[in-house]
Amino acid sequence: MRLTIIGTGLIGTSIAMAASQLDDVEVTGWDPDSGELSLAAQRSGLAPAPSLEAAVKDADAVVVAAPVGRISSVVKAVLDASPADALITDVGSTKQGVVEANSDPRFVGGHPLAGGETGGAAHARADLFKGATWFLTPVENTAGVQLERAFRIVTELGARPRAVAPDVHDRILATVSHLPHVLANLLVAEAAATLADEGEPLPATGPSFRDATRVAGAPSSIWTDIYLSNADALIERLDAVELGIKRVRELLVARDSAGVTEWNDLAAAQRGQLAAEGATGGSVHELRVQVPNEPGVLASIALTLGGVGIDLTDLQLHPAADRATGTIVLGIEGADSAERAAKLISELGHSVSQG
Amino acid sequence: MRLTIIGTGLIGTSIAMAASQLDDVEVTGWDPDSGELSLAAQRSGLAPAPSLEAAVKDADAVVVAAPVGRISSVVKAVLDASPADALITDVGSTKQGVVEANSDPRFVGGHPLAGGETGGAAHARADLFKGATWFLTPVENTAGVQLERAFRIVTELGARPRAVAPDVHDRILATVSHLPHVLANLLVAEAAATLADEGEPLPATGPSFRDATRVAGAPSSIWTDIYLSNADALIERLDAVELGIKRVRELLVARDSAGVTEWNDLAAAQRGQLAAEGATGGSVHELRVQVPNEPGVLASIALTLGGVGIDLTDLQLHPAADRATGTIVLGIEGADSAERAAKLISELGHSVSQG
Repeated sequence: MRLTIIGTGLIGTSIAMAASQLDDVEVTGWDPDSGELSLAAQRSGLAPAPSLEAAVKDADAVVVAAPVGRISSVVKAVLDASPADALITDVGSTKQGVVEANSDPRFVGGHPLAGGETGGAAHARADLFKGATWFLTPVENTAGVQLERAFRIVTELGARPRAVAPDVHDRILATVSHLPHVLANLLVAEAAATLADEGEPLPATGPSFRDATRVAGAPSSIWTDIYLSNADALIERLDAVELGIKRVRELLVARDSAGVTEWNDLAAAQRGQLAAEGATGGSVHELRVQVPNEPGVLASIALTLGGVGIDLTDLQLHPAADRATGTIVLGIEGADSAERAAKLISELGHSVSQG
Repeated sequence: MRLTIIGTGLIGTSIAMAASQLDDVEVTGWDPDSGELSLAAQRSGLAPAPSLEAAVKDADAVVVAAPVGRISSVVKAVLDASPADALITDVGSTKQGVVEANSDPRFVGGHPLAGGETGGAAHARADLFKGATWFLTPVENTAGVQLERAFRIVTELGARPRAVAPDVHDRILATVSHLPHVLANLLVAEAAATLADEGEPLPATGPSFRDATRVAGAPSSIWTDIYLSNADALIERLDAVELGIKRVRELLVARDSAGVTEWNDLAAAQRGQLAAEGATGGSVHELRVQVPNEPGVLASIALTLGGVGIDLTDLQLHPAADRATGTIVLGIEGADSAERAAKLISELGHSVSQG
C-alpha cells in the first residue's frame, strides 16, 4: 500500500513511523515546512515529495495531518489531486466542518485521541496510537472500500477505531476535551486573581488544583482553531455548566446541607458510571455479515455498533465474485459485545454468523 | 511533651504515628468511635483515653482532628477541659468559622494540606505530612507561646508551616481546592448528560477529562461540611467563573479568533506564573529578632512573613530572664527570602540580625 502523509508534525510523523514498521507499506510525505519534512523523513524513512500533488498522485491512502484551521482546504486540495480509488482521511480534532466541506465518497473524517504536550516531528513516536481510540466519521455517501481501508490502517497503527457521526463526535469532544480545557483556563485565571487580591502566594497545591489545571493555556496555535471550529457544541456545554453553577450557588446560599450532599453524591455516582463505561476487556470475537455491495452499508453497520459503544478491533470487506454481494468480517472484544453486535446487525436486515 | 489527639481518623492517627517517632513526646488519643481509637492505638502506640476530658486534662498540646462540621464544638469542649497553658489547634479545611467561634489565646487554627482518598486510622501514615504546607491561622489575641508550640509541632511532623489570616486562608482554599472540586462535579454531570443525549459511550478519554474529574464526587461525609463552611468564599469564586464563562461564550459566538488567542495565551502566562510561585529552594538561614514579650508580636511577624509567601522552617521563642523581652529565632529557606524577611521585620519596628 502506498500511504501518503500530508503534514509531518507530531501526528503525521508518528503515523509515518508506525506505518513504516508494517509490511508492504510505502510511506510518502509532504509538508509546507521543508525542515519538518526532512526531519520526518530522517525519523520515519518516509520519501519526501516535492509538492502536495506529487505526494498524493499515486497514493492508495492519504492522511491529512494539517492544523485544524486549514484542514478543510488541504483535504479539498488532496481530493482534487488524488486517484479516483484512494482513501483520504484526516486527523483533526473537530469533524463536522471538514466533513461538510468535503462531501466525497473517498473522504472519511478521522480523529485519533492521541497527541502530546509538544508538537513537531522531533517528538513523534511510533507507539503514539497504541490502544488509543481513533474516531472515524463516515456519512451516508462514504464508500465502503475507503471506509474499510481507513479501519484497517487505524487498526494496524495500533489504535482502536470507533465509528461515529461527525456531529456526535464534536459534541462528545466538546464535553470530554474542549470544556475541560476552558475550565482549566478559568481556574488559573481565578488562582491568578486570588494571588493578586490576597497579596498571598498560593500554597504548593494539592492534586485537585494541579490536575484540574494541567491543560490550562494549551498552545493557542492549535487550540484557537479547535475552540472556534467547535464553537456551537462548546457554547452548549458552557451554558449547561453555567446552569450547574447557578444550582450549586443556590444550595450554598441556602446552606442546604441535604441538597449539597445529594448533588455531590450524584457526581460520585456519575463518575462511577463513566468509569464503568470506560472499562473494556475480554477476548476478540469474529462476526461475518453477508451484505449487498451497496453504498452506505458498511457505514451504517459501523455507525450502529459505534453508537452503542462497541469498538471494532478489526473490519474487513470481502466482495463476492459476482461483485453484487460481499462479506464483512468484524472483530469485537468480549462475548457480550459480540452477541449484542450480532443482534443489532440482524436488526439492520443482514445475515450474520459468529465464527 | 504530652500531645493529645482528639479524633483518630486518617489525619489524627497520622499525626500520632509521626509524633510517636519523636523524642520526648507522649501521645494520648480519644475518639468517639472506640474501634477507630483501638486501631489508632495499635498503629501509632498512642495511649487511648476513656473520654475527651481525660485525654486533654494534662496535655501540653491538643490537636483536634474532628470532621469540619463538628470541629467548632469539639474545639470548645477541648478548650474547656484543657490546662491554662496548653496549645489547642485543629486540622479543619476551613478556618474562619472555627477561629471566630473559639476566641481563646490558647487556640491556633491549623490546616495541613495533606490527606488521602480513603479516610480512617487504617490508612494513616507517619510520613503523610512530609514537605506539605501546613497553614496556621493566628489572630491578634493568639498567645505567642502557643503559636510557637504550634510551629514547632508542625515542623517536627515534617511539614512546612505557613501563617495566614483565617479569612485569607479560606479564600485561598476556595480557589485552589473547593472550586476545582465543584467544577469536577459539574464536568462529570456534563459527561453523564452527553452520554444520555447522544446514546453514545464516551471514549476512553485523554488526560484532560480524567485529570479534571479525578476529585469529582469526593466523599459527602467530608465535603458537604467543607462546601458549607466556606460557602461565602466559594460563592464569590463561582460568580467569577460564571463571569469568565460568559466572556468566553461571547468570544466563541463572535468567532473572535484574536480574542480567543489572547484569552488562551493569558491562561498560559498565568499557569506559568503560578508554577514559578510554587518554586522554592536554597538553604536555611537563621534570623534572630528582639521583641517585647507582648501578645500578638509573634503572630504579627508570622503573618507578615506568611503574607509574602515566606515559609518558616523553624520558629522558636526565647523569653529573656526578665520576661519583658525575648528573642525569636526564625529559620528561612533561601538567602533572598531571609533578606526580605529581615527587612520586613525591621519595618515592623523590631531589631533583627542574621546568624
